[in-house]
Amino acid sequence: MSFQHLKVTPHRLINTIHQTAQWGAKGIWGPEPTQTGMCRLTLSDDDKEVRDWFIKEVNSLGCKVKIDQLGNIFAIYSGQKDGLPTAIGSHLDTQPTGGRYDGILGVLCGLEVLRTIKDNGFTPKYPIAVINWTNEEGARFPVSLMSSLVWSGAHDLQETYNLKSITDDVPVTVRDELERIGYIGDVPVDYKQNPIKCHFEIHIEQGPILEESNKKIGIVVGAQGYDWTKVHVKGKATHTGTTPFYARSDALLATSQMICKGNELAKKAEGLFSVGVLNLLPKVVNVIPDSTEFVMDLRHPIKDSLHKLKDDCVEEFKKIAHEAGRNVSVEFEHVMLSDPLEFHADCVSCVQSAAVELYGKDNVLEIVSGAGHDSCATSGVVPTSMIFIPSKDGVSHNPEEYSTPEQVAEGFQVLLNAVLRYDSLRVD
Amino acid sequence: MSFQHLKVTPHRLINTIHQTAQWGAKGIWGPEPTQTGMCRLTLSDDDKEVRDWFIKEVNSLGCKVKIDQLGNIFAIYSGQKDGLPTAIGSHLDTQPTGGRYDGILGVLCGLEVLRTIKDNGFTPKYPIAVINWTNEEGARFPVSLMSSLVWSGAHDLQETYNLKSITDDVPVTVRDELERIGYIGDVPVDYKQNPIKCHFEIHIEQGPILEESNKKIGIVVGAQGYDWTKVHVKGKATHTGTTPFYARSDALLATSQMICKGNELAKKAEGLFSVGVLNLLPKVVNVIPDSTEFVMDLRHPIKDSLHKLKDDCVEEFKKIAHEAGRNVSVEFEHVMLSDPLEFHADCVSCVQSAAVELYGKDNVLEIVSGAGHDSCATSGVVPTSMIFIPSKDGVSHNPEEYSTPEQVAEGFQVLLNAVLRYDSLRVD
Repeated sequence: MSFQHLKVTPHRLINTIHQTAQWGAKGIWGPEPTQTGMCRLTLSDDDKEVRDWFIKEVNSLGCKVKIDQLGNIFAIYSGQKDGLPTAIGSHLDTQPTGGRYDGILGVLCGLEVLRTIKDNGFTPKYPIAVINWTNEEGARFPVSLMSSLVWSGAHDLQETYNLKSITDDVPVTVRDELERIGYIGDVPVDYKQNPIKCHFEIHIEQGPILEESNKKIGIVVGAQGYDWTKVHVKGKATHTGTTPFYARSDALLATSQMICKGNELAKKAEGLFSVGVLNLLPKVVNVIPDSTEFVMDLRHPIKDSLHKLKDDCVEEFKKIAHEAGRNVSVEFEHVMLSDPLEFHADCVSCVQSAAVELYGKDNVLEIVSGAGHDSCATSGVVPTSMIFIPSKDGVSHNPEEYSTPEQVAEGFQVLLNAVLRYDSLRVD
Repeated sequence: MSFQHLKVTPHRLINTIHQTAQWGAKGIWGPEPTQTGMCRLTLSDDDKEVRDWFIKEVNSLGCKVKIDQLGNIFAIYSGQKDGLPTAIGSHLDTQPTGGRYDGILGVLCGLEVLRTIKDNGFTPKYPIAVINWTNEEGARFPVSLMSSLVWSGAHDLQETYNLKSITDDVPVTVRDELERIGYIGDVPVDYKQNPIKCHFEIHIEQGPILEESNKKIGIVVGAQGYDWTKVHVKGKATHTGTTPFYARSDALLATSQMICKGNELAKKAEGLFSVGVLNLLPKVVNVIPDSTEFVMDLRHPIKDSLHKLKDDCVEEFKKIAHEAGRNVSVEFEHVMLSDPLEFHADCVSCVQSAAVELYGKDNVLEIVSGAGHDSCATSGVVPTSMIFIPSKDGVSHNPEEYSTPEQVAEGFQVLLNAVLRYDSLRVD
C-alpha cells in the first residue's frame, strides 16, 4: 500500500486535542466547552496525567517506550527493518496562560500518525518515534527548549536538574519534580547514546503570515536568529517644571528616540526590533527620568544581517545618547544570542513535496520560524524540519490561540505524508 | 533709620539653616556635617521639633503667634501702627529625599528679617508676619500647597483633614497627625478671617537658569501653568519573533513616538513637555506591549499657549495611534490643570528695586517659576511675589540641593529690603 492512500479517521485528532485538554484547561474565552486555553506547566500534576495517558495510548499501539533522565518520552513504533527511528517531536507542556495548540498539536499529530498507520495495517520501512520533550516552554523552569537542548549536547544535564521553578511559591528543582511525578528515567539525555534519524515537527505558526496570505501550509525552511541585549540609559533626574530643554538629560526621551530608531533600522534591514520590557526611575510625575533600562529583542533570518543590525543599533543609540544631553549615556549588556538556523534540505523537501502534492503550490508558503522550537535544538545534530499551520490573528501564548479543525487536519495530512515519504526514501 | 542701612549679622542665617537641619537630616553626600539632605515629612516628630523651636525663637523676639486649624504658624512682629501684616511665608517640611533649602530657606529668611530688625531696633510701619505653611510638599499627604490652598479658599478644610498619608505603613489622616503633635490650632484657615496684607517668599530656583546665566537674583514675575494628563495607549500583545512589522500594534512604539513628538511640539511652543511616569503591560521580553499608560506633564507661562499645546499633543497623539497599527488607540484622562499666574506688580516692583539697588541690573533676571509654591496659592487672594536664588546644577528634591552661603546671604538681603520697602510704601 502506498503511504499516499492511507485512510485517515476524521475528527479523531481534533477530538484528542480537546479531550486531553482536561488536564490543565484554563482561561475561558467562549461559550463552548472547547473554548478555553491551557495551563499545563511542565512536571505539574496535570503534566503527569497527560504523560500517563500518552504512554497508555502508545503502549496500546504496540510502541516501545523509553523515558530519559529528563523525562523526555520516546514512543517507538517498529518498522520493517531495524534502524534509527524517524522522529516526530514537540511538547505537551504549555505557558501559564497558553492555548490548546502550541506544542500539543505536534505531539498529538505524532500520535495520530502512529494510530493511522496501525489502523491501515501499514508498516513503515524503519521505526517511527513520537517524542514528548520536557519543558519546551521554559515557563516553569526558565530555560526554553530545556530538554531538547540537553539531548542535543548544547546544555548540561546537572545544571538543568538544578534549575529552580519560578512559578511556585516555594521553588522546586527540575530533579525534585521529575522524581515527584515519577518521570526520571534512566535513558541518557544524549543524541549519541539515544539517537534518532531525523526530527519532524508540526506547529502553529504563532504569527499572522499564513492567515494573511491565505495559505494552508508553511514549509519551514529555518528559524531566524535573535539577539537580546539589555540597554541601560543614564540621564539626570531634574524637576519637570524648572528645567528648560537645553538643561535636560532626559533618559526617557533618549530611550523613546532609540525605540523609534531601532524600529526604523530593523525595517530597513528586513529584520525585527522589539522592546517588551522597559523600566524607569524614579517614576515620579514631575521628575525627569534619571535612568531607564530596556531589553532590545532583535531578529533576523540571516546571521550577518542579525549581527549588523545589532551593531547599527549600538552605534545609533550611542549617537542619540551623545546628542540627548550632557549627562546622558548608554551601556549595553549581552543577554542572549541565537544565530539563525537552516533546516535540512532532505527533510524540507519531504515537507514541500507532501504539501504541494496535497494542496497545490498556491496553498503553501516557504516560511522562517520566528520563535524557538525543539526542532531548533535537534537541528544542530540531526536532519530536521517543521510544518506550520495558520494561527487565527497570529495569536499565541494566549487562551484564544486557535486554528480551525480543517487547518489542523490539513497540517496533520502533510506531516503524515512527509514522514512516510522520508521513511520510504531512507536507504540508511 | 533707613531700612537700607540695617546691619545684618554675618553667617547667622546660614548657621540657623544648618543647625535646624538636625531635625530630619538624611542623605549624606559629602564629608562635611552640613553635607546631608533632609527628610522632614510634614507633621512628623521632626516637624514638631522644628515647629517648637521656631515658636520659641519668634517668642523670644516678642512676636505674637497664631496657630490655625491646619497648623499653619503665623508669627507676627508688631509695627508702629496696627494693620494687616506684611507676610513672608514658606514651609519647613521637606520631601522624603529632599535638601536643606527648599522651603526652609523661605521661613528662616523670614525669621532672619525679624531678628535683623529687632537687633537694629528698627520698627516697621506695619506688622510683619512670618508664616510656616503646613505640607507644602504634598509628600506625606498627597496634595501640594495643602494648607495655603485651604487658607486661600481653593480647597476644603474637612476634605483636607481626611487626607490619608502615603508614606506611613499604616496610613493616618492630617487631623490625626495635627492632634498627635499638638498643632491643631483654633484660628480659622481662611484669608478672610485671618488676613494678611501681602505675601513675599524667597526660594531656591530649583532649576539651572540663574546659575547658567550667571545671575544672583531671580525676580519672579509669575508662575507657569501646568496640565497633567494620563495617556492610555492600547495596542495588541503579540510575539516579537513571529509578528512582522505590518501586523503589529505596538503600544510602546506608538508611545515612544508620542514622547518624541510631545517634546518637539513643546519646544516649538516655548513650553515644556515631560513624561516622568510610564507603565507597560505585559512586560515580557518577547511579547510586544499590549498597552501603556503615561502621565504627560505640560508647562507654559501663558494660559492660551498651555491650552493650545495640550490640544496639539492630543491631536498629534491621535494621528500617531491611527498610523501605528489597526489595533492601536489612545485615550486621555484629565489629572490636573493649574493655569499660569502673574504676581502682583507692587510686590514684584519692590523685589526688583531691592535687587537692582543691591546688585545692579546685570545681576538680576526676571524669571517665571517652573514649580508650584505657597505663593501660587496666596497670589489668588493677596498681592504676592517671590525671589529666587541660584540652585547648584538646578538640582532640587534631592539631598544634593545646594546654594552657596553667599547666594543665601544675597537673597536674604533682597528679601529684607523688598519687604521693608513694601512696608515703607504702605499707606493702607
